[in-house]
Amino acid sequence: MRVIVLGGDGYLGWPTAMRLAARGHDVLAVDNYLRRRIARETDSEPLFATPELPERARLFEESGGPKVEVAIGDCCDFAFLADLFRRFQPEAVVHYAEQPSAPYSMMGYEEARLTLDNNLTATFNVIWAVKDHAPGCHVVKLGTMGEYGTPNIDIEEGWIEIAHKGRKDTFLYPRAAGSLYHTTKVLDTDLLWFYVRTYGLAVTDLMQGPVYGLSTAEADADERLLPNFHYDDIFGTVVNRFLVQAVAGIPLTVYGRGGQTRGYLNILDTLQCVLLALENPAAAGELRILNQFVEQLSVNEIAEKVQRVGNALGLGVAVRSIENPRKEKEDHYYNAKHQGLLDLGLEPHPMTDDVIAGMLERVLRHKGRIERGRILPRVKWSAARSAAEPGRPPAPAGVDA
Amino acid sequence: MRVIVLGGDGYLGWPTAMRLAARGHDVLAVDNYLRRRIARETDSEPLFATPELPERARLFEESGGPKVEVAIGDCCDFAFLADLFRRFQPEAVVHYAEQPSAPYSMMGYEEARLTLDNNLTATFNVIWAVKDHAPGCHVVKLGTMGEYGTPNIDIEEGWIEIAHKGRKDTFLYPRAAGSLYHTTKVLDTDLLWFYVRTYGLAVTDLMQGPVYGLSTAEADADERLLPNFHYDDIFGTVVNRFLVQAVAGIPLTVYGRGGQTRGYLNILDTLQCVLLALENPAAAGELRILNQFVEQLSVNEIAEKVQRVGNALGLGVAVRSIENPRKEKEDHYYNAKHQGLLDLGLEPHPMTDDVIAGMLERVLRHKGRIERGRILPRVKWSAARSAAEPGRPPAPAGVDA
Repeated sequence: MRVIVLGGDGYLGWPTAMRLAARGHDVLAVDNYLRRRIARETDSEPLFATPELPERARLFEESGGPKVEVAIGDCCDFAFLADLFRRFQPEAVVHYAEQPSAPYSMMGYEEARLTLDNNLTATFNVIWAVKDHAPGCHVVKLGTMGEYGTPNIDIEEGWIEIAHKGRKDTFLYPRAAGSLYHTTKVLDTDLLWFYVRTYGLAVTDLMQGPVYGLSTAEADADERLLPNFHYDDIFGTVVNRFLVQAVAGIPLTVYGRGGQTRGYLNILDTLQCVLLALENPAAAGELRILNQFVEQLSVNEIAEKVQRVGNALGLGVAVRSIENPRKEKEDHYYNAKHQGLLDLGLEPHPMTDDVIAGMLERVLRHKGRIERGRILPRVKWSAARSAAEPGRPPAPAGVDA
Repeated sequence: MRVIVLGGDGYLGWPTAMRLAARGHDVLAVDNYLRRRIARETDSEPLFATPELPERARLFEESGGPKVEVAIGDCCDFAFLADLFRRFQPEAVVHYAEQPSAPYSMMGYEEARLTLDNNLTATFNVIWAVKDHAPGCHVVKLGTMGEYGTPNIDIEEGWIEIAHKGRKDTFLYPRAAGSLYHTTKVLDTDLLWFYVRTYGLAVTDLMQGPVYGLSTAEADADERLLPNFHYDDIFGTVVNRFLVQAVAGIPLTVYGRGGQTRGYLNILDTLQCVLLALENPAAAGELRILNQFVEQLSVNEIAEKVQRVGNALGLGVAVRSIENPRKEKEDHYYNAKHQGLLDLGLEPHPMTDDVIAGMLERVLRHKGRIERGRILPRVKWSAARSAAEPGRPPAPAGVDA
């Protein structure tokens, strides 16, 4: 299958590009390095530097992998994107090309505006590139479980039948996200759903939970092929942050009461899920929504796991609750369905002690590179910065203390 | 009260600015003439030319009305908007500043992109201008009943309690709009709801049905103060189009089977509703949603009314079904609640024969100005134009035949 991976330099993008190529698909990986730029500007560099995309593709081939085509450019530039679609004629596109950090989207006006503009325009352009230049191309879009928020009823897979005053209809499951970043994914879903029912696009929207892990079959061949491992408060997800804290001897920082429950998955399962979605495509005119995670865990449960396994490795791990920089419920009902991908054949990798130990051992090899100042929250939801004053240059994207 | 009216040159904006000023409020009307530009580019000029905003304000004062301040500029330019808010310190803002045409938003890539960018950025900037420069300012946002689409259950006022598997919660009523324009209003609602619950803004979102009419107390003093009366397929709403067709001797064009049912209101009731919302503001942290219409009518019912009244005036009105250029249900369940504004004191002006006769008589005075080529649909939902080819200049915004 001919597949374009947009955001192909990202935490998930590059591992996905390698996996699809290893699986025999023709892959074009596309990125504009927006995440690299934001990471530099916010002092949120990953634990170890990763080569840029053309070099990654070269190293992958050198390690015995197949060729991954690469294009550097911005999906918000429609002429660029349309040209890729016309030239490559993809049968599927994996759309990861979004600003992915919730804290970044809550820093202030400029960061919020960049997140809204970038994410919506990228999705809009993907829709039109498919419509104009690759009709029939299956769009596999990365959404987030965060779109749903934490409702007091069960979370279904994207849709819900509502019985109301003696009548019934089926609707998009109502969404209420906890950050502007997550809200842009809600807007993406609305936009995709409009164009699916109007122009008959075939779309799979993957509502993914927080991902952890840094090992994949392809990256294990050469450490320079590893995913970008962010452990900071801007780009790092909670499990990856806890792993680095355990190794660095910093107490695991639980935000508030720690009852925040979400559905988690190993990056190995992300790769499985995306492959399953691609190889079992949505129909024309279908917006298929799949909840992409393998187990529900609270922040406290994750902290306890990492602490227990870390202590067994002699790390002496402490856990400390700190003031929650976000605005979210810290104790809440959470029961989210996630049957669709299991039905397609997903074989989950749960977060076992062995898995945690393996990740801790990998992080230990890079212990000397850990920058402690990157770990504690630097962005408060309640303290977003105003826009730059008119007539003055825009504020630098450096974070507030 | 100090009120900024964004989109103050529009069909509703200018009458609102005058009404608020007449009611004793301090009004700043803001516009960038986007609608005028699009109307020129698509050959959709109104039935009679209306003066630009500064001239309208001058004529209004000349007719004995109070002063309306005017500012010409783009709400998508945050420096411009922030400066207005800082200087004027509004207690309320009425946000009409959006590209309002559904057919325009379905013409092709450029028109869709302009609609998405303009409408979302305007709303985003209003949120931040309030947050940064006028905290406590009540945002009165014009949404549309079109956000809900035509569900098979009753349409509630913005919110719905869902009972599901033995548990309950209250959600934004699920939305599924019929054009990209209407979808941008869905995105607006999502964005407002996120920032209301995160930053405690006070927002009233008015889900308005199609408006008709061209007479208001203030405009009746001087015909040069009339609203922009569009009767074309791009900016004209169905009732205004039928009035002009009846006068011009063109059969009233019913799209498809004509069972499309919506909630309608006279522009006099729009003015009442906006005033009621302003003078009974939402609380901080509240997204108050009110369905703004006074009666449900199908397209066939409206055609019959206009035909009957037109014939009584000797106009010899015919009705003709034509192929529906849109993608919508032509026979459907529709029962939408609209109690909130009645509870605040709205006194509806239903679409009586007298009201229709009064409108027909006004249009008759301008009969010689009717351009017949503007009335039949020029935009098909199924025939959206591709984006301009890379390296070539963008396509002109002229409509497809």
